[in-house]
Amino acid sequence: MASNRLTNAAGNAIADLSIAAAASEIASGRVTSEALVSACLERIATLDPEIEAFAWCDPAYAIEQAKQADRWRQSGNGCGPLHGVPIAIKDIIDTSDMPTEYGSPIFSGCRPQQDAQCVAALRSAGAVIIGKTVTTELALLTPAKTKNPAAPGHTPGGSSAGSAAGVAAGMVPAALGTQTAGSVLRPASYCGVYGFKPTLGLISRRGVLMQSHTLDTVGVLTRSIEDAAVLVDAMSAHDPEDPVSYPRSQPNLAGLAMDTPPSEPVLAFLNTPSWADADPRMHEAYAELAGALGGVLEEIDAPILADIIEWQRIVQLAENAAYYGALLDNHADQLSPGLRDRLTVGSAVPVRAYLEAIAAREQAYEKIAELYARYTAILTPPAPGPAPGLEEGITGSPVFNGLWTYLGMPTISIPLLEVDDLPLGVQLVGLRRDDGRLLRTARWLENYTANATA
Amino acid sequence: MASNRLTNAAGNAIADLSIAAAASEIASGRVTSEALVSACLERIATLDPEIEAFAWCDPAYAIEQAKQADRWRQSGNGCGPLHGVPIAIKDIIDTSDMPTEYGSPIFSGCRPQQDAQCVAALRSAGAVIIGKTVTTELALLTPAKTKNPAAPGHTPGGSSAGSAAGVAAGMVPAALGTQTAGSVLRPASYCGVYGFKPTLGLISRRGVLMQSHTLDTVGVLTRSIEDAAVLVDAMSAHDPEDPVSYPRSQPNLAGLAMDTPPSEPVLAFLNTPSWADADPRMHEAYAELAGALGGVLEEIDAPILADIIEWQRIVQLAENAAYYGALLDNHADQLSPGLRDRLTVGSAVPVRAYLEAIAAREQAYEKIAELYARYTAILTPPAPGPAPGLEEGITGSPVFNGLWTYLGMPTISIPLLEVDDLPLGVQLVGLRRDDGRLLRTARWLENYTANATA
Repeated sequence: MASNRLTNAAGNAIADLSIAAAASEIASGRVTSEALVSACLERIATLDPEIEAFAWCDPAYAIEQAKQADRWRQSGNGCGPLHGVPIAIKDIIDTSDMPTEYGSPIFSGCRPQQDAQCVAALRSAGAVIIGKTVTTELALLTPAKTKNPAAPGHTPGGSSAGSAAGVAAGMVPAALGTQTAGSVLRPASYCGVYGFKPTLGLISRRGVLMQSHTLDTVGVLTRSIEDAAVLVDAMSAHDPEDPVSYPRSQPNLAGLAMDTPPSEPVLAFLNTPSWADADPRMHEAYAELAGALGGVLEEIDAPILADIIEWQRIVQLAENAAYYGALLDNHADQLSPGLRDRLTVGSAVPVRAYLEAIAAREQAYEKIAELYARYTAILTPPAPGPAPGLEEGITGSPVFNGLWTYLGMPTISIPLLEVDDLPLGVQLVGLRRDDGRLLRTARWLENYTANATA
Repeated sequence: MASNRLTNAAGNAIADLSIAAAASEIASGRVTSEALVSACLERIATLDPEIEAFAWCDPAYAIEQAKQADRWRQSGNGCGPLHGVPIAIKDIIDTSDMPTEYGSPIFSGCRPQQDAQCVAALRSAGAVIIGKTVTTELALLTPAKTKNPAAPGHTPGGSSAGSAAGVAAGMVPAALGTQTAGSVLRPASYCGVYGFKPTLGLISRRGVLMQSHTLDTVGVLTRSIEDAAVLVDAMSAHDPEDPVSYPRSQPNLAGLAMDTPPSEPVLAFLNTPSWADADPRMHEAYAELAGALGGVLEEIDAPILADIIEWQRIVQLAENAAYYGALLDNHADQLSPGLRDRLTVGSAVPVRAYLEAIAAREQAYEKIAELYARYTAILTPPAPGPAPGLEEGITGSPVFNGLWTYLGMPTISIPLLEVDDLPLGVQLVGLRRDDGRLLRTARWLENYTANATA
């Protein structure tokens, strides 16, 4: 089982425990939160000067939180599902006790007064917030300083660059990211970790920097599917203050994810408009995967995809211009040239095109949802290839991600492939509000391919 | 009590029964629906050739519905709160058994397959749908053919022109209207009837022509406050298909409206930016009203109002362009020049201005809502003066209405005043989701002024 492949309750490998294993060890008293957090901080001290995944990390403050968690348990109190487990937070998500600088000098030294709703939920579940991870400028496309631990000399992707790199380097079991186009799935693929963006509305976005109210989604970067489920479970709650949040009971994704599918899944390989232009090495890797999957994978066309990609682009551009427009007005000299250009282009989006793109969403979703009458999940690359080299000065293209973000569908990248020693993920997409089945299918796929290549 | 002032269970005045009285007479068997509907049809036959309130009315079909209602009761079945009562429907609201032409030759002969949700609700409550009332072109500003029965030679206002005129002429006890800026309240004021636009989301907009998903609201034109409450009660239900609809139990507005306020209301007269430019005759009439109200009415400033008026304008223009843009592309020759210009202007609204106007709404509402810590309701004119003369070629300005539509607040126009024999309403505005208290305050105001002038 992937989630346990690095589990080791002793010695320095304690930092490699899965979330579930770590929480269980801590709750039982076999491991202290202090020991776990210390082990992670050691890794950070050793590796982060090179990787630069963290925007802010105060070891003493992390240890203080860990000691509190230990005292809490020792006093006989109950332990939440993340009790004492360190989690890192992308630096566009507000924390009341740490700076939140949104990857922009404009917000240098900014300290929000309140935790974001998702951070508050993690604390309620017992998590230690170990620090803030590097984001690209305002969670958009200008590359950040972070390196890719799994692919030296290549971008870690963006915008959740530090979250993906921190998990990939083993500095922390998991980290929060956000996705407006492809900011969770793409870095996950490039760094060889799991990236899960749940259904829009499952996790509240209150206290998260807003660049697009239609698209912004909180997600997670983890070492396993189970960890992604546990982490999202802890943050899943209806928040009436977030208009996309919807009332429901806790989904128990962790339970569903570990179940065996009642019948063998059938996957749809979507021939997206971007596939033909993707990296030839990726074509080869996916051909191999298709060979291993055999009849389980069927290639299909969905002509609406080109429109969906364009609608996502229009919506993001226009909403970016609206939410960041005041920065262009008042702080243009502190924005990167690329972002300035983007906001100028966004301001020029015709309002009718914007509103038509918004209006098209539900029908487009219905169209795609019809595929699920036959298919358990859609399988598609999470990026056009492995991570681009740093010399290209880009974080890669979100063209394989934006459409699913627009449709609000849950999507996960699983680190199943490799080309030229560079990680490459496989993306599975599920129906809205059907996150548990998506994760179950993802685990099934992981096991299936492991057996096929064993 | 205003709702009973014309009540008469016998003879030709049967057409003047209030909704509640009519339903009660029919349920008890003292009056048949056929008799009531026939009396209304007689009025329509006599008056409508001149007034032109109806876009479509088939007397035989109306009588057929009435006879069905009578047979239903005679078979011992239970009667809904509108059993056998004729209601007219604005012709932008879909009806499965009558044409719906949206006031535009582009939709000449159009017959929707389904009833709008609110029409279906009326039928469930037992109503007889007596016909479709004239709307201005696509519910916007180009005048319709309808005349004002209460002010000959003057516009009935718009866009719910036929609904207001039909009720004012006594052809029908009540009619549905819709409001995106001021299309219920303004014609109510001009025609001397009651116009009530409930909280956005109380009545589903499914099956109603959409010109602005942010602003469009279903409302009613009636002969009394109680009738408005009874009618909205019958249509109030959560509809998950309408994104602004919200879950709740039935509000029982009719019960609340007839209660006595627990303490004497205090009303805020809002000095809106449009007040200074309003008709001087209206200034006089309102000064008299203020004199009669004495300490009950306090004049206050709210500097944010100018911004709110502008935000409503921006949102409506932009969304009009989006929803009607295809008509401009494909049927420009069948649109009025005024509407063509409007759609062209709307298409040029900068997307950033639009999104900022959308984003400003909740905070603006919070600002206005603060006033309700002291005031029971806001009192303001429903229009800049009495109905403009037909020679002006306009339906009047919605500048006193659009801001409340934008804020989603319930608002009612009460026909309390008159200048030069022209009706003039008084508008009361309540907190969102507090429609019952608004109606109760409106009844209190009506009684208070009746006693003050008696």
